[in-house]
Amino acid sequence: MSRILGIDPGLHITGWGMVDYNGSRLKYISHGTIMSESSEDVGSRLSNIFKKLSDVIEKYSPDEASIEDIFVNKNPFSSLKLGMARGAAVCCVGVLGLKIHGYTPNKIKKTVVGTGHATKEQVSIMVQKLLNCGNVKLDAADALAVAVCHAHHRTSYMVAQ
Amino acid sequence: MSRILGIDPGLHITGWGMVDYNGSRLKYISHGTIMSESSEDVGSRLSNIFKKLSDVIEKYSPDEASIEDIFVNKNPFSSLKLGMARGAAVCCVGVLGLKIHGYTPNKIKKTVVGTGHATKEQVSIMVQKLLNCGNVKLDAADALAVAVCHAHHRTSYMVAQ
Repeated sequence: MSRILGIDPGLHITGWGMVDYNGSRLKYISHGTIMSESSEDVGSRLSNIFKKLSDVIEKYSPDEASIEDIFVNKNPFSSLKLGMARGAAVCCVGVLGLKIHGYTPNKIKKTVVGTGHATKEQVSIMVQKLLNCGNVKLDAADALAVAVCHAHHRTSYMVAQ
Repeated sequence: MSRILGIDPGLHITGWGMVDYNGSRLKYISHGTIMSESSEDVGSRLSNIFKKLSDVIEKYSPDEASIEDIFVNKNPFSSLKLGMARGAAVCCVGVLGLKIHGYTPNKIKKTVVGTGHATKEQVSIMVQKLLNCGNVKLDAADALAVAVCHAHHRTSYMVAQ
Protein backbone atom coordinates (compact mmCIF):
# COMPACT_ATOMS: atom_id res chain seq x y z
CA MET A 1 0.00 0.00 0.00
CA SER A 2 1.25 3.48 -0.91
CA ARG A 3 0.01 6.82 0.31
CA ILE A 4 0.11 9.44 -2.43
CA LEU A 5 0.02 13.22 -2.06
CA GLY A 6 -1.28 15.21 -5.04
CA ILE A 7 -0.58 18.95 -5.33
CA ASP A 8 -2.17 21.62 -7.50
CA PRO A 9 0.06 24.64 -6.81
CA GLY A 10 -0.95 28.29 -7.10
CA LEU A 11 0.12 31.52 -5.40
CA HIS A 12 -3.47 32.33 -4.41
CA ILE A 13 -4.77 28.77 -3.81
CA THR A 14 -2.73 25.57 -3.53
CA GLY A 15 -4.88 22.45 -3.46
CA TRP A 16 -3.72 19.16 -1.96
CA GLY A 17 -5.22 15.69 -1.85
CA MET A 18 -4.19 12.42 -0.18
CA VAL A 19 -5.12 8.91 -1.37
CA ASP A 20 -4.05 5.39 -0.52
CA TYR A 21 -3.43 2.88 -3.30
CA ASN A 22 -2.90 -0.83 -2.80
CA GLY A 23 -2.27 -1.91 -6.40
CA SER A 24 -5.91 -2.21 -7.41
CA ARG A 25 -7.97 -0.03 -5.07
CA LEU A 26 -7.94 3.68 -4.32
CA LYS A 27 -8.99 5.03 -0.94
CA TYR A 28 -9.67 8.67 -0.17
CA ILE A 29 -7.78 9.95 2.89
CA SER A 30 -8.07 13.75 2.98
CA HIS A 31 -7.87 16.98 1.00
CA GLY A 32 -7.59 20.72 1.56
CA THR A 33 -6.56 24.10 0.22
CA ILE A 34 -3.83 26.54 1.28
CA MET A 35 -4.94 30.12 0.66
CA SER A 36 -3.07 33.42 0.61
CA GLU A 37 -4.13 37.01 0.07
CA SER A 38 -2.64 39.11 -2.74
CA SER A 39 -2.19 41.92 -0.18
CA GLU A 40 0.55 39.85 1.54
CA ASP A 41 4.13 40.03 0.24
CA VAL A 42 5.34 37.16 -1.90
CA GLY A 43 7.82 35.93 0.76
CA SER A 44 4.98 35.41 3.24
CA ARG A 45 2.78 33.78 0.61
CA LEU A 46 5.47 31.30 -0.48
CA SER A 47 6.58 30.47 3.06
CA ASN A 48 2.90 29.93 3.93
CA ILE A 49 2.63 27.33 1.13
CA PHE A 50 5.85 25.69 2.37
CA LYS A 51 4.80 25.58 6.03
CA LYS A 52 1.19 24.42 5.49
CA LEU A 53 2.29 21.75 3.02
CA SER A 54 4.96 20.61 5.52
CA ASP A 55 2.19 20.26 8.15
CA VAL A 56 0.11 18.15 5.73
CA ILE A 57 3.10 15.89 4.94
CA GLU A 58 3.98 15.49 8.62
CA LYS A 59 0.37 14.72 9.54
CA TYR A 60 -0.35 12.14 6.81
CA SER A 61 3.15 10.77 6.01
CA PRO A 62 2.71 10.13 2.27
CA ASP A 63 5.16 7.77 0.52
CA GLU A 64 5.15 9.61 -2.80
CA ALA A 65 4.14 13.01 -4.15
CA SER A 66 2.76 14.11 -7.51
CA ILE A 67 2.14 17.50 -9.08
CA GLU A 68 0.59 18.91 -12.21
CA ASP A 69 3.20 19.99 -14.75
CA ILE A 70 2.73 23.67 -15.32
CA PHE A 71 0.55 24.95 -18.08
CA VAL A 72 2.68 27.69 -19.61
CA ASN A 73 0.50 30.76 -19.53
CA LYS A 74 0.61 33.29 -22.37
CA ASN A 75 1.06 35.97 -19.73
CA PRO A 76 4.70 35.61 -18.60
CA PHE A 77 3.98 37.26 -15.23
CA SER A 78 1.27 34.68 -14.50
CA SER A 79 3.73 31.94 -15.48
CA LEU A 80 6.32 33.40 -13.13
CA LYS A 81 3.87 33.55 -10.20
CA LEU A 82 2.78 29.99 -10.89
CA GLY A 83 6.46 29.00 -11.22
CA MET A 84 7.23 30.48 -7.81
CA ALA A 85 4.28 28.73 -6.14
CA ARG A 86 5.30 25.46 -7.80
CA GLY A 87 8.89 26.10 -6.67
CA ALA A 88 7.78 26.48 -3.04
CA ALA A 89 5.67 23.29 -3.19
CA VAL A 90 8.28 21.15 -5.00
CA CYS A 91 11.00 22.46 -2.70
CA CYS A 92 8.93 21.60 0.41
CA VAL A 93 8.35 18.04 -0.81
CA GLY A 94 12.06 17.69 -1.66
CA VAL A 95 13.24 19.09 1.70
CA LEU A 96 11.04 16.53 3.46
CA GLY A 97 12.68 13.74 1.46
CA LEU A 98 9.89 12.75 -0.93
CA LYS A 99 10.32 12.23 -4.67
CA ILE A 100 7.87 14.25 -6.74
CA HIS A 101 6.37 13.07 -10.02
CA GLY A 102 4.97 15.42 -12.65
CA TYR A 103 2.05 14.83 -15.01
CA THR A 104 0.71 17.04 -17.79
CA PRO A 105 -2.86 18.39 -17.42
CA ASN A 106 -3.82 16.32 -20.48
CA LYS A 107 -2.51 13.08 -18.98
CA ILE A 108 -4.33 13.76 -15.71
CA LYS A 109 -7.64 14.47 -17.46
CA LYS A 110 -7.25 11.46 -19.76
CA THR A 111 -6.54 9.19 -16.80
CA VAL A 112 -9.36 10.46 -14.59
CA VAL A 113 -12.11 11.39 -17.08
CA GLY A 114 -11.04 9.51 -20.21
CA THR A 115 -10.45 12.58 -22.37
CA GLY A 116 -7.62 15.11 -22.35
CA HIS A 117 -10.05 17.95 -22.98
CA ALA A 118 -12.27 17.46 -19.91
CA THR A 119 -13.39 20.55 -17.99
CA LYS A 120 -12.41 21.23 -14.35
CA GLU A 121 -16.02 20.40 -13.39
CA GLN A 122 -15.87 17.00 -15.14
CA VAL A 123 -12.58 16.23 -13.37
CA SER A 124 -14.17 17.16 -10.03
CA ILE A 125 -17.25 14.97 -10.62
CA MET A 126 -15.12 11.96 -11.65
CA VAL A 127 -12.77 12.39 -8.67
CA GLN A 128 -15.75 12.45 -6.30
CA LYS A 129 -17.17 9.31 -7.96
CA LEU A 130 -13.84 7.42 -8.00
CA LEU A 131 -12.96 8.28 -4.40
CA ASN A 132 -16.48 8.49 -2.95
CA CYS A 133 -15.35 11.53 -1.00
CA GLY A 134 -18.35 13.87 -1.18
CA ASN A 135 -18.23 17.45 -2.39
CA VAL A 136 -14.71 18.76 -3.07
CA LYS A 137 -13.62 22.28 -4.12
CA LEU A 138 -12.18 22.50 -7.65
CA ASP A 139 -8.56 23.16 -6.59
CA ALA A 140 -8.53 20.25 -4.16
CA ALA A 141 -10.30 18.06 -6.76
CA ASP A 142 -7.46 18.84 -9.19
CA ALA A 143 -4.94 17.83 -6.53
CA LEU A 144 -6.81 14.56 -5.87
CA ALA A 145 -6.89 14.00 -9.66
CA VAL A 146 -3.07 14.28 -9.80
CA ALA A 147 -2.80 11.72 -6.98
CA VAL A 148 -5.20 9.36 -8.79
CA CYS A 149 -3.22 9.85 -12.02
CA HIS A 150 0.03 8.99 -10.23
CA ALA A 151 -1.58 5.89 -8.65
CA HIS A 152 -2.43 4.65 -12.15
CA HIS A 153 0.91 5.46 -13.76
CA ARG A 154 3.35 5.00 -10.91
CA THR A 155 4.97 1.92 -12.38
CA SER A 156 6.02 4.07 -15.34
CA TYR A 157 6.08 7.45 -13.68
CA MET A 158 7.87 10.54 -14.87
CA VAL A 159 9.99 12.67 -12.57
CA ALA A 160 8.75 16.29 -12.49
CA GLN A 161 10.79 18.67 -14.66
CA MET B 1 24.52 48.39 11.37
CA SER B 2 22.56 45.99 9.16
CA ARG B 3 23.70 42.78 7.55
CA ILE B 4 22.20 42.32 4.09
CA LEU B 5 21.90 39.12 2.06
CA GLY B 6 21.66 39.50 -1.72
CA ILE B 7 20.40 36.63 -3.88
CA ASP B 8 20.65 36.02 -7.61
CA PRO B 9 18.46 32.93 -8.09
CA GLY B 10 18.78 30.35 -10.85
CA LEU B 11 18.02 26.64 -11.16
CA HIS B 12 21.57 25.88 -12.33
CA ILE B 13 23.46 28.52 -10.28
CA THR B 14 22.14 30.60 -7.39
CA GLY B 15 24.56 33.32 -6.30
CA TRP B 16 24.53 34.85 -2.83
CA GLY B 17 26.43 37.74 -1.26
CA MET B 18 26.57 39.18 2.25
CA VAL B 19 27.46 42.79 3.13
CA ASP B 20 27.28 44.94 6.27
CA TYR B 21 26.00 48.51 6.00
CA ASN B 22 26.23 51.07 8.78
CA GLY B 23 24.39 53.97 7.13
CA SER B 24 27.38 55.30 5.19
CA ARG B 25 29.86 52.45 4.74
CA LEU B 26 29.63 49.09 3.07
CA LYS B 27 31.68 46.12 4.26
CA TYR B 28 32.11 42.86 2.38
CA ILE B 29 31.38 39.80 4.49
CA SER B 30 31.16 36.78 2.18
CA HIS B 31 29.76 35.37 -1.06
CA GLY B 32 29.20 32.04 -2.79
CA THR B 33 27.28 30.03 -5.35
CA ILE B 34 24.87 27.12 -5.00
CA MET B 35 25.15 24.81 -8.01
CA SER B 36 23.00 21.98 -9.29
CA GLU B 37 23.25 19.59 -12.20
CA SER B 38 20.52 19.41 -14.85
CA SER B 39 20.70 15.61 -14.55
CA GLU B 40 19.17 15.86 -11.05
CA ASP B 41 15.38 16.00 -10.69
CA VAL B 42 13.84 19.39 -10.02
CA GLY B 43 12.76 18.46 -6.47
CA SER B 44 16.37 17.76 -5.49
CA ARG B 45 17.59 20.92 -7.23
CA LEU B 46 15.07 23.18 -5.49
CA SER B 47 15.52 21.59 -2.08
CA ASN B 48 19.29 21.96 -2.56
CA ILE B 49 18.81 25.73 -3.08
CA PHE B 50 16.57 25.85 0.00
CA LYS B 51 18.96 23.89 2.24
CA LYS B 52 22.19 25.62 1.17
CA LEU B 53 20.61 29.06 1.45
CA SER B 54 19.28 28.11 4.91
CA ASP B 55 22.85 27.18 5.90
CA VAL B 56 24.13 30.57 4.66
CA ILE B 57 21.40 32.44 6.60
CA GLU B 58 22.06 30.44 9.76
CA LYS B 59 25.82 30.98 9.48
CA TYR B 60 25.78 34.74 8.81
CA SER B 61 22.45 35.84 10.43
CA PRO B 62 21.53 38.63 7.99
CA ASP B 63 18.95 41.23 9.10
CA GLU B 64 17.45 41.76 5.65
CA ALA B 65 17.36 40.01 2.30
CA SER B 66 17.19 41.32 -1.25
CA ILE B 67 16.68 39.66 -4.61
CA GLU B 68 16.70 40.61 -8.26
CA ASP B 69 13.20 40.93 -9.68
CA ILE B 70 12.87 38.43 -12.45
CA PHE B 71 13.64 39.35 -15.98
CA VAL B 72 10.73 37.82 -17.89
CA ASN B 73 12.32 35.62 -20.50
CA LYS B 74 10.79 35.30 -23.95
CA ASN B 75 11.07 31.54 -23.53
CA PRO B 76 8.21 30.66 -21.14
CA PHE B 77 9.95 27.46 -20.00
CA SER B 78 13.05 29.42 -18.99
CA SER B 79 10.79 31.84 -17.10
CA LEU B 80 9.13 28.93 -15.33
CA LYS B 81 12.46 27.41 -14.28
CA LEU B 82 13.68 30.77 -13.07
CA GLY B 83 10.33 31.26 -11.30
CA MET B 84 10.75 27.95 -9.49
CA ALA B 85 14.33 28.74 -8.40
CA ARG B 86 13.20 32.18 -7.23
CA GLY B 87 10.26 30.52 -5.43
CA ALA B 88 12.62 28.20 -3.53
CA ALA B 89 14.92 31.10 -2.55
CA VAL B 90 12.14 33.52 -1.55
CA CYS B 91 10.36 30.75 0.32
CA CYS B 92 13.55 29.86 2.24
CA VAL B 93 14.11 33.48 3.29
CA GLY B 94 10.44 33.77 4.34
CA VAL B 95 10.45 30.51 6.31
CA LEU B 96 13.50 31.76 8.23
CA GLY B 97 11.62 34.95 9.13
CA LEU B 98 13.39 37.53 6.94
CA LYS B 99 11.63 40.10 4.78
CA ILE B 100 12.78 40.07 1.18
CA HIS B 101 13.06 43.16 -1.00
CA GLY B 102 13.01 43.05 -4.79
CA TYR B 103 14.86 45.30 -7.23
CA THR B 104 14.71 45.37 -11.03
CA PRO B 105 17.91 44.57 -12.95
CA ASN B 106 17.91 48.17 -14.24
CA LYS B 107 17.75 49.68 -10.76
CA ILE B 108 20.56 47.41 -9.55
CA LYS B 109 22.83 48.33 -12.49
CA LYS B 110 22.00 52.03 -12.18
CA THR B 111 22.80 51.98 -8.46
CA VAL B 112 26.03 50.01 -8.74
CA VAL B 113 27.47 51.12 -12.10
CA GLY B 114 25.56 54.34 -12.80
CA THR B 115 23.78 53.13 -15.91
CA GLY B 116 20.82 50.74 -16.31
CA HIS B 117 22.43 49.19 -19.39
CA ALA B 118 25.70 48.04 -17.79
CA THR B 119 27.02 44.60 -18.70
CA LYS B 120 27.45 41.76 -16.17
CA GLU B 121 31.22 42.31 -16.37
CA GLN B 122 30.89 46.02 -15.54
CA VAL B 123 28.66 45.14 -12.55
CA SER B 124 31.25 42.62 -11.39
CA ILE B 125 34.14 45.12 -11.66
CA MET B 126 32.23 47.84 -9.77
CA VAL B 127 31.16 45.41 -7.03
CA GLN B 128 34.78 44.33 -6.54
CA LYS B 129 35.87 48.02 -6.38
CA LEU B 130 33.08 49.08 -4.00
CA LEU B 131 33.55 46.13 -1.66
CA ASN B 132 37.27 45.55 -2.10
CA CYS B 133 36.58 41.83 -2.11
CA GLY B 134 38.92 40.49 -4.78
CA ASN B 135 37.84 38.37 -7.70
CA VAL B 136 34.19 37.28 -7.62
CA LYS B 137 32.33 34.99 -10.02
CA LEU B 138 29.64 36.72 -12.09
CA ASP B 139 26.65 35.09 -10.35
CA ALA B 140 27.95 35.94 -6.90
CA ALA B 141 28.87 39.46 -8.11
CA ASP B 142 25.24 39.92 -9.19
CA ALA B 143 24.10 38.79 -5.74
CA LEU B 144 26.51 41.25 -4.05
CA ALA B 145 25.22 43.96 -6.41
CA VAL B 146 21.63 43.31 -5.21
CA ALA B 147 22.81 43.61 -1.60
CA VAL B 148 24.64 46.88 -2.40
CA CYS B 149 21.51 48.17 -4.19
CA HIS B 150 19.35 47.36 -1.17
CA ALA B 151 21.85 49.06 1.16
CA HIS B 152 21.45 52.26 -0.88
CA HIS B 153 17.67 52.12 -1.21
CA ARG B 154 16.59 50.45 2.00
CA THR B 155 14.95 53.56 3.45
CA SER B 156 12.55 53.49 0.50
CA TYR B 157 12.67 49.81 -0.36
CA MET B 158 10.14 47.85 -2.32
CA VAL B 159 8.81 44.52 -1.15
CA ALA B 160 9.49 41.78 -3.72
CA GLN B 161 6.45 40.92 -5.90
